[in-house]
Amino acid sequence: MSKLSAPTRDKLRTVSTATLTTCLFKRGLRNQFLQAVHPLNPQAAPMVGEAYTLRYIPAREDLNPITVFQDRNHPQRKAVEECPPGAVLVIDSRQDARAASAGGILVTRLMTRGVAGIVTDGGFRDSPEIATLAIPAYHRRPSAPTNLTHHQAIDINVPIGCAGVPVFPGDIVVGDAEGVVVVPAHLADEIAAEAAEMTVFEDFVTEQVRQGRSILGLYPATDEQTRSDFTAWRKAKGR
Amino acid sequence: MSKLSAPTRDKLRTVSTATLTTCLFKRGLRNQFLQAVHPLNPQAAPMVGEAYTLRYIPAREDLNPITVFQDRNHPQRKAVEECPPGAVLVIDSRQDARAASAGGILVTRLMTRGVAGIVTDGGFRDSPEIATLAIPAYHRRPSAPTNLTHHQAIDINVPIGCAGVPVFPGDIVVGDAEGVVVVPAHLADEIAAEAAEMTVFEDFVTEQVRQGRSILGLYPATDEQTRSDFTAWRKAKGR
Amino acid sequence: MSKLSAPTRDKLRTVSTATLTTCLFKRGLRNQFLQAVHPLNPQAAPMVGEAYTLRYIPAREDLNPITVFQDRNHPQRKAVEECPPGAVLVIDSRQDARAASAGGILVTRLMTRGVAGIVTDGGFRDSPEIATLAIPAYHRRPSAPTNLTHHQAIDINVPIGCAGVPVFPGDIVVGDAEGVVVVPAHLADEIAAEAAEMTVFEDFVTEQVRQGRSILGLYPATDEQTRSDFTAWRKAKGR
Amino acid sequence: MSKLSAPTRDKLRTVSTATLTTCLFKRGLRNQFLQAVHPLNPQAAPMVGEAYTLRYIPAREDLNPITVFQDRNHPQRKAVEECPPGAVLVIDSRQDARAASAGGILVTRLMTRGVAGIVTDGGFRDSPEIATLAIPAYHRRPSAPTNLTHHQAIDINVPIGCAGVPVFPGDIVVGDAEGVVVVPAHLADEIAAEAAEMTVFEDFVTEQVRQGRSILGLYPATDEQTRSDFTAWRKAKGR
Amino acid sequence: MSKLSAPTRDKLRTVSTATLTTCLFKRGLRNQFLQAVHPLNPQAAPMVGEAYTLRYIPAREDLNPITVFQDRNHPQRKAVEECPPGAVLVIDSRQDARAASAGGILVTRLMTRGVAGIVTDGGFRDSPEIATLAIPAYHRRPSAPTNLTHHQAIDINVPIGCAGVPVFPGDIVVGDAEGVVVVPAHLADEIAAEAAEMTVFEDFVTEQVRQGRSILGLYPATDEQTRSDFTAWRKAKGR
Amino acid sequence: MSKLSAPTRDKLRTVSTATLTTCLFKRGLRNQFLQAVHPLNPQAAPMVGEAYTLRYIPAREDLNPITVFQDRNHPQRKAVEECPPGAVLVIDSRQDARAASAGGILVTRLMTRGVAGIVTDGGFRDSPEIATLAIPAYHRRPSAPTNLTHHQAIDINVPIGCAGVPVFPGDIVVGDAEGVVVVPAHLADEIAAEAAEMTVFEDFVTEQVRQGRSILGLYPATDEQTRSDFTAWRKAKGR
Repeated sequence: MSKLSAPTRDKLRTVSTATLTTCLFKRGLRNQFLQAVHPLNPQAAPMVGEAYTLRYIPAREDLNPITVFQDRNHPQRKAVEECPPGAVLVIDSRQDARAASAGGILVTRLMTRGVAGIVTDGGFRDSPEIATLAIPAYHRRPSAPTNLTHHQAIDINVPIGCAGVPVFPGDIVVGDAEGVVVVPAHLADEIAAEAAEMTVFEDFVTEQVRQGRSILGLYPATDEQTRSDFTAWRKAKGR
Repeated sequence: MSKLSAPTRDKLRTVSTATLTTCLFKRGLRNQFLQAVHPLNPQAAPMVGEAYTLRYIPAREDLNPITVFQDRNHPQRKAVEECPPGAVLVIDSRQDARAASAGGILVTRLMTRGVAGIVTDGGFRDSPEIATLAIPAYHRRPSAPTNLTHHQAIDINVPIGCAGVPVFPGDIVVGDAEGVVVVPAHLADEIAAEAAEMTVFEDFVTEQVRQGRSILGLYPATDEQTRSDFTAWRKAKGR
Repeated sequence: MSKLSAPTRDKLRTVSTATLTTCLFKRGLRNQFLQAVHPLNPQAAPMVGEAYTLRYIPAREDLNPITVFQDRNHPQRKAVEECPPGAVLVIDSRQDARAASAGGILVTRLMTRGVAGIVTDGGFRDSPEIATLAIPAYHRRPSAPTNLTHHQAIDINVPIGCAGVPVFPGDIVVGDAEGVVVVPAHLADEIAAEAAEMTVFEDFVTEQVRQGRSILGLYPATDEQTRSDFTAWRKAKGR
Repeated sequence: MSKLSAPTRDKLRTVSTATLTTCLFKRGLRNQFLQAVHPLNPQAAPMVGEAYTLRYIPAREDLNPITVFQDRNHPQRKAVEECPPGAVLVIDSRQDARAASAGGILVTRLMTRGVAGIVTDGGFRDSPEIATLAIPAYHRRPSAPTNLTHHQAIDINVPIGCAGVPVFPGDIVVGDAEGVVVVPAHLADEIAAEAAEMTVFEDFVTEQVRQGRSILGLYPATDEQTRSDFTAWRKAKGR
Repeated sequence: MSKLSAPTRDKLRTVSTATLTTCLFKRGLRNQFLQAVHPLNPQAAPMVGEAYTLRYIPAREDLNPITVFQDRNHPQRKAVEECPPGAVLVIDSRQDARAASAGGILVTRLMTRGVAGIVTDGGFRDSPEIATLAIPAYHRRPSAPTNLTHHQAIDINVPIGCAGVPVFPGDIVVGDAEGVVVVPAHLADEIAAEAAEMTVFEDFVTEQVRQGRSILGLYPATDEQTRSDFTAWRKAKGR
Repeated sequence: MSKLSAPTRDKLRTVSTATLTTCLFKRGLRNQFLQAVHPLNPQAAPMVGEAYTLRYIPAREDLNPITVFQDRNHPQRKAVEECPPGAVLVIDSRQDARAASAGGILVTRLMTRGVAGIVTDGGFRDSPEIATLAIPAYHRRPSAPTNLTHHQAIDINVPIGCAGVPVFPGDIVVGDAEGVVVVPAHLADEIAAEAAEMTVFEDFVTEQVRQGRSILGLYPATDEQTRSDFTAWRKAKGR
């Protein structure tokens, strides 16, 4: 169902969001990392999946009594039931964490449905409980007030902004213990490949630096010696 | 074409956004005034019209070269040509004024098309020129950088947030020298009537206060004397 | 001494701040959760107690030399000695965390005096030490500078704002690992009861969802089946 | 009634807030200028008077229906009627301009009562009207929503913070076209005298600089020549 | 003395900062407009000159008594005396407007010395006086407190950040009634030429739009008709 | 090489940043604690060393392609190789955490070179990895995007601002689990001595308070009894 290929998904699970932003920077994309959004449970990462989006607008009081959730077609509830397994639910909460984007029960439902993760640029309620779940979840800060206090879910799977980043449905959303990066769908395969290669090199560099080697000529590999050492290291490590 | 009746439009032109927020507050609507948005040309107000909305998301660099405006269907350009005369174009710029929501030429085009006003929670470029136009325009602060630097127009006439306020297409948008308030469409007639009545009373109160009368018992009119004085004043003034 | 009844206190210890905000929302109270304030020691929660308040204003340099603490009647020190056991000391620091609201020694004193918790919308100094104490403490962020750098304690047990929330002396302050909510005193009993009931239902829902059940019809319980299942579950669980 | 002497009041009317902050800085007071607060009507300044304070806390919805203003003892209305002529009403709005601190009718009443000015660290409604009144008024930005939307007046004439500055009842509040500075009551006479002298010197310096003189040795007057020129200039000007 | 050629300076005086940001955007420079900085006296613009920079760091109290200005080599005073005629003094105030970047006397001195303008990302004191001077001045907001309260001048003519923009000594700084844009020195000639051409076209477009023409096909000029009309218009206007 | 004496370094390792700010406050230094900066790995503290600084300005796109790091003299790389062992690298990132100040490899290199710590008022990338290293690191929040996205390293070892604090090369930078304080170089010895003494007293006070003693008369030690108890306690403890 997902257009994200299994090999690309696997590669993206092994690379960091930092490495991915470098690959994106090289292609002129400077603004794909979600600002000020962090994982509730760093252990649950990595997260990889296609973006399935949910858009909130500010709540108008008369349209958002507690009874709206009785409607099975309420977009928030619908999104939770329809977000595809393997996808990541990304919510545009207008960077407003004064009320919750979602809570423990909905996130649990996403987890049991096989959804790959959930991201908001607002906050989650029941955050201590969510922090224990086996689904990666990212937000700005805990926010107990019920969603309807400040948010009205209005649209499903349209292009949104999240934490200052453009997110198109189907973009590849990758999260680790540092945060979340959005990889445009058409670049996913090539960036996954490039990032996986970079990761091998950075592992080599890290090992060298831990052994006391200077970064000059090593990182980036401007010395011929670095390149030959790396070739030998790869061979030795079988990577 | 507009569902906004002529008498309601006329009444809304004579009342202040302050008075309207009081009417909305009485109905439990506490969040209809656009925060931190002000008129470029206070003389151009009052502004009254139905909301016609435009939604921006953050710009992705590869999707937003300068050439995108060659597309006649680019949502920003389309909105400028299709926003109905008498309506107000309201732009969701995610409260981001780092790049322009629109500039002098587009605002001039809206003016010549008979559009009633333009509002963004970002900023306009060519703001000194816009400040001289005979169309009310409201923004956060001047912003010279071209729209594409940080914005991508994505949707026309969907519900949006603007400056923290929910705006549904067709809501009545009213602006004066103080700022902009959004009146839900279904309340427009009754709120216009109530606000017009309140304005008469407030004009009476202001006159009394200027003459040295205390506000106690006068505002609100808890004294019987106030009520009879007001009745006499209305009669005398023919209001 | 406390007007907070023991059964209500006990119930409030078993419910989350998230559930309480829902109960408050149903009564039209949308702004009772402290924004951007978090526990230093999530393990120490839950916190329940009546609010005892302390108000700070910005420090004027000539009035706040280090010697002011030699005065036994300095409001900060007085508050620490007089805050009743079982109460929560809530400090209005004007959301300014540039200097400490209090430090490790004062918080330790509150703990030994049996105070139920301490909350500021500024920051604590000695925060690593406070994080190890058996008293719930909530703040915005660690702040080493001595209190007098930016704060002057001015009033004890007057109504204050804390993190954007109105706090009246005697209001019930409840904290968990998510944050802090303020329950108006006159609503404490009924909200505690309602929240306790809601918690039973949410525990049922969570269990169902973990077993793979959809939230539609379940949460909220719009399906008759949900209601009968819940009745059976309660019976089985003895809750 | 005022403890502010007529000569000091007169001197303070002739000096700028900039000059006053320098005098305060020399005495170790670095934080007496209200941040981000500006005059609605720069022409109405200068403002000089003793501080009479009003304190707001965040509004709790159930305590703040529109009907509260029917109470003649509502602190906001009471403050407007009781602030002494010649004093300045200073409002602690917690730097929250989302709802009005006061509006046109109340400010008009203050003006007719002979109050010297009004200051808030929030916003005024009816700001276009207030901008035409002959009473200095200072705020952060226009704010149409009625006061009760976010504020509850709670205390009169207690020490407050306003725009980050400590304000004690009786402090001398001075405003010009630049902004507002708070002079501690006990320093008013000496600072007024010093600032008046500084102003004479700065007028001399400005004249010299306009004529092309370098600031080196002139400002500050480290050259002996500057001091003798100034003496001559004062004599010639009769200042 | 200036490397800015007279023809380029003249062209830059006739184009808007908005047009310049478009030229910069086409070259991949998206961040050259100073954010949230505005002219004190919009009538004084346009401003064109080479950047001469001054860098502030936060003030340490013991290093910044009022007496430091007695030192003729104090970097702030030195910068005011040494900034070349025709240059623009650009101050990095770390976007901190709590204390003044400079005041009326220094700005007057710059004016009499023939300096082309002054820009800070903080605030000026004596702002009402500066607003009357015949030198363009740009800041964030008025700020009465003396410079030393929060700033220490530390460096002259080094690369700085100002309002989020990189400024290298010698870059061309252009200001109009909208704000300030920084043109890298090596691009000044080509961008001035391109912007002047664009301005001619935009004047044509504006005239057409005022006469009722649609922007589609006109702006940008995707219709052949537009291009031939423009050619004819230029000829007729002699531009 | 370091001018920081071994005894002073040792003392500073045993005192808290909170205690140090009190010592600084007593000398009129109110602004030496880095605001909103926290340790990535609280276990790695304490950090003590002389400041070695690195200054960033906003990145201009054309000057900051990924290839700039091939230059061995790039200031960021140079700083990492040249920061003296035992010193603390302090980076002025203009409080901008949208892109990384540095990443895991560079921080590892600093660690292996014996550098005492690294501080930025922006963010680090590879923050999960840095959190595991045996070198104290302090930042605002995790930030994956590569440094060049928003920063250009421009200067080494000049006076800077970091998180609102003036930092001169050679100042003593102390970090604990609470945050970072900057002690002016010339005060380091006397403040270390005073803070060490204060720490002994505070340890005594804490013990007393834990045993149930009131803070009145104890803290500060205004009771004679406190002073004699403390003398006895010191003797007993051998401190």
